[in-house]
Amino acid sequence: MKIDETHDPARTSWVPGADTHRDFPVQNLPYGIFSEAEGAPRPAVAIGDWLLDLSAISGLLPVELHGATLNALFALPAERRLALRRKLSELLSEPSHRPALMPHLRRQDAVTMHLPAHIGDYTDFYVGIHHANNVGRQFRPDNPLLPNYKHVPIGYHGRTSSIRPSGVPVVRPKGQRKPPEAEAPSYGPTARLDYELELGVWVGRGNDLGEPIPIAEAADHVAGFCLLNDWSARDLQAWEYQPLGPFLAKNFHSTISPWVVTPEALAPFRIAQPQRPQDDPRPLPYLWDDTDQQAGALAVELEVHLLTARMRDEGIAPHRLSHGPASNMYWTVAQILTHHASNGCNLQPGDLLGTGTISAPTEEGFGSLMELAQGGKRPVKLGHGEERSFLQDGDEVILSATARAEGRVPIGFGECRARILPAR
Amino acid sequence: MKIDETHDPARTSWVPGADTHRDFPVQNLPYGIFSEAEGAPRPAVAIGDWLLDLSAISGLLPVELHGATLNALFALPAERRLALRRKLSELLSEPSHRPALMPHLRRQDAVTMHLPAHIGDYTDFYVGIHHANNVGRQFRPDNPLLPNYKHVPIGYHGRTSSIRPSGVPVVRPKGQRKPPEAEAPSYGPTARLDYELELGVWVGRGNDLGEPIPIAEAADHVAGFCLLNDWSARDLQAWEYQPLGPFLAKNFHSTISPWVVTPEALAPFRIAQPQRPQDDPRPLPYLWDDTDQQAGALAVELEVHLLTARMRDEGIAPHRLSHGPASNMYWTVAQILTHHASNGCNLQPGDLLGTGTISAPTEEGFGSLMELAQGGKRPVKLGHGEERSFLQDGDEVILSATARAEGRVPIGFGECRARILPAR
Repeated sequence: MKIDETHDPARTSWVPGADTHRDFPVQNLPYGIFSEAEGAPRPAVAIGDWLLDLSAISGLLPVELHGATLNALFALPAERRLALRRKLSELLSEPSHRPALMPHLRRQDAVTMHLPAHIGDYTDFYVGIHHANNVGRQFRPDNPLLPNYKHVPIGYHGRTSSIRPSGVPVVRPKGQRKPPEAEAPSYGPTARLDYELELGVWVGRGNDLGEPIPIAEAADHVAGFCLLNDWSARDLQAWEYQPLGPFLAKNFHSTISPWVVTPEALAPFRIAQPQRPQDDPRPLPYLWDDTDQQAGALAVELEVHLLTARMRDEGIAPHRLSHGPASNMYWTVAQILTHHASNGCNLQPGDLLGTGTISAPTEEGFGSLMELAQGGKRPVKLGHGEERSFLQDGDEVILSATARAEGRVPIGFGECRARILPAR
Repeated sequence: MKIDETHDPARTSWVPGADTHRDFPVQNLPYGIFSEAEGAPRPAVAIGDWLLDLSAISGLLPVELHGATLNALFALPAERRLALRRKLSELLSEPSHRPALMPHLRRQDAVTMHLPAHIGDYTDFYVGIHHANNVGRQFRPDNPLLPNYKHVPIGYHGRTSSIRPSGVPVVRPKGQRKPPEAEAPSYGPTARLDYELELGVWVGRGNDLGEPIPIAEAADHVAGFCLLNDWSARDLQAWEYQPLGPFLAKNFHSTISPWVVTPEALAPFRIAQPQRPQDDPRPLPYLWDDTDQQAGALAVELEVHLLTARMRDEGIAPHRLSHGPASNMYWTVAQILTHHASNGCNLQPGDLLGTGTISAPTEEGFGSLMELAQGGKRPVKLGHGEERSFLQDGDEVILSATARAEGRVPIGFGECRARILPAR
């Protein structure tokens, strides 16, 4: 992916505060869907603490954007998306456009953000090898990774109806669980509610049923990225997951960040996929592409913060639970997408792929409480007297991410946050 | 569910051949979406070998039907669907309506049938206990059923994008597989392609995220039934399914029958759920309802036929592979629906639930080739010299179903059929 004038660190924006914004300087330009108290949901681009209403300036744009979803934008060829990006970069940096565009800026904190696309299907993968190791070790100390892990990008289908944008509270789910010491299962609120730190991948152009996607073309099918919290009820999961995988332990709610960070914006932050250990098997040819290996990972730092009800009441800042690189993935985005379509399964614009929990080999980068607190054996101390083995009502989990590279303006993903409400 | 004049065995139709039709006498009246060479997809009701174009007679109906899906119909309260049914029954039985309606009849074999609804999410369950036993025995001879089976209606999410109506050919999928004797996995066309005989359940009225559905209300959330062939690549499945369940082994294609058989049509065919063995655990209260146990099963006979390329060439009739009752389900439809929403997961009109493979304790009722041919150990003889362990290119699998009850006109589901095309 080419680096062009839209990435120029010298480019600045006339939008107040954009140039020093943590997530949305003019080098980012992520898309989303917003609404105001009046009026239908419609497309926007984020700039600093503001957004620009794209439906109001469609006459100025090379691509027509309207409606309540970005699916049509996702379906465009990469070069048309790039044309749109270059135009928006010009509009938001050239001060001469300020008078025409100012009326169409809105403060992000004054609008409601929606899901950016109609999600046809949602698939969650399991590419965070350290997570697979950490979790596998809790179940199978001697043999944490199953024999297929280094050959197959493991994934499974998730639920689309319960995906919500950042900010929508999560009702603590009830469900069946049977702790090992119990004689019989019971039904009630989960006692082991957890988060999972993931990246979400928005599928762009789709493929026809029966037609696989060659890995060399996989990048052309990606429309963007977001943060994804795959909330998990560990007690439900342990009891239900055999033999067909997680179900009610996951499908009660998933939270995504509402801004779609484009592959075009992330071009300067592509790095080589971390090298496989020498004696790991080489993937089968359909999953291997040298170009992808050289630039298939993202130099993105992920962070998780926790804000408890007490911290909120006492004005204590969120506690950072973990931080680590998104490159802790055993398979690249191109590999998971290619694998998904390798049997002819048809992907569609607006499908969402989750990476699976991204963890690290050491605890500062663990991507779930189950890992951090060792399944409840070693509660996490939050520094002001509270501790957590699992999430409590009132807790708020905040995921964030920043892409950084030498000589580049860092760009972020915005927040993916939600608070836990008591079970009903 | 009340039995009314629409079920009267004495009621006949003026539509030619309808009264002796195997599937669609006037007592059935299933809905579907069809199109002709010209014109958009639109709703219809099946009657004999014909269908009635409902968009053309909307002025006569108590419910407005238009558009390319039945989702709005599914979302209606049961009493409004019943009003529509009673009106259609009158229109298609009273000869005085013949002149007005004849122009809006089409032969089913002259139109294209589509998916009846936009499917938001598709979930496949595993309630065929004999299938679970038969398959489990191949993996774990001493302990075929896992400990959760009799407590939890096991289910997992499937893929919506690759669901196709009856008649659309299935491209043999490629994928990764590693036979036990192989040193390493390889990628290629599946060598163990199978079918699975299932019922599909169309979700009607939905529930809000976070709000479970009490089992006493579950029946109100069902809009209809269909047949479902959950095509499966057994070699892909064996290699990929741990620890997160089946994925590419299933999501390359699923076939459903296009006609939605309503709960109203099936009212006379409700029977008691087969009694659980004495020492089976009693389900938890959220999954138990006496009314459901007394009338939660369907007196539906299921059949699977196979037509090979050679049989087609030589004019040999399809070979019946199996037949058995749909009541071979350990959990009722109300139980799987209630369980699905028990964690607050929001179901939506047009969601599709599969029952999982419905099998029998003995081989005449086995619901998949893997069971019939014992994983390839004992190929099925087709009677004219051919045999099958798994499906070959050119094979066509035909699922059918008939509801029967003493003193009632039997009604059927139509066909769910598709032919295997070679891998691309």
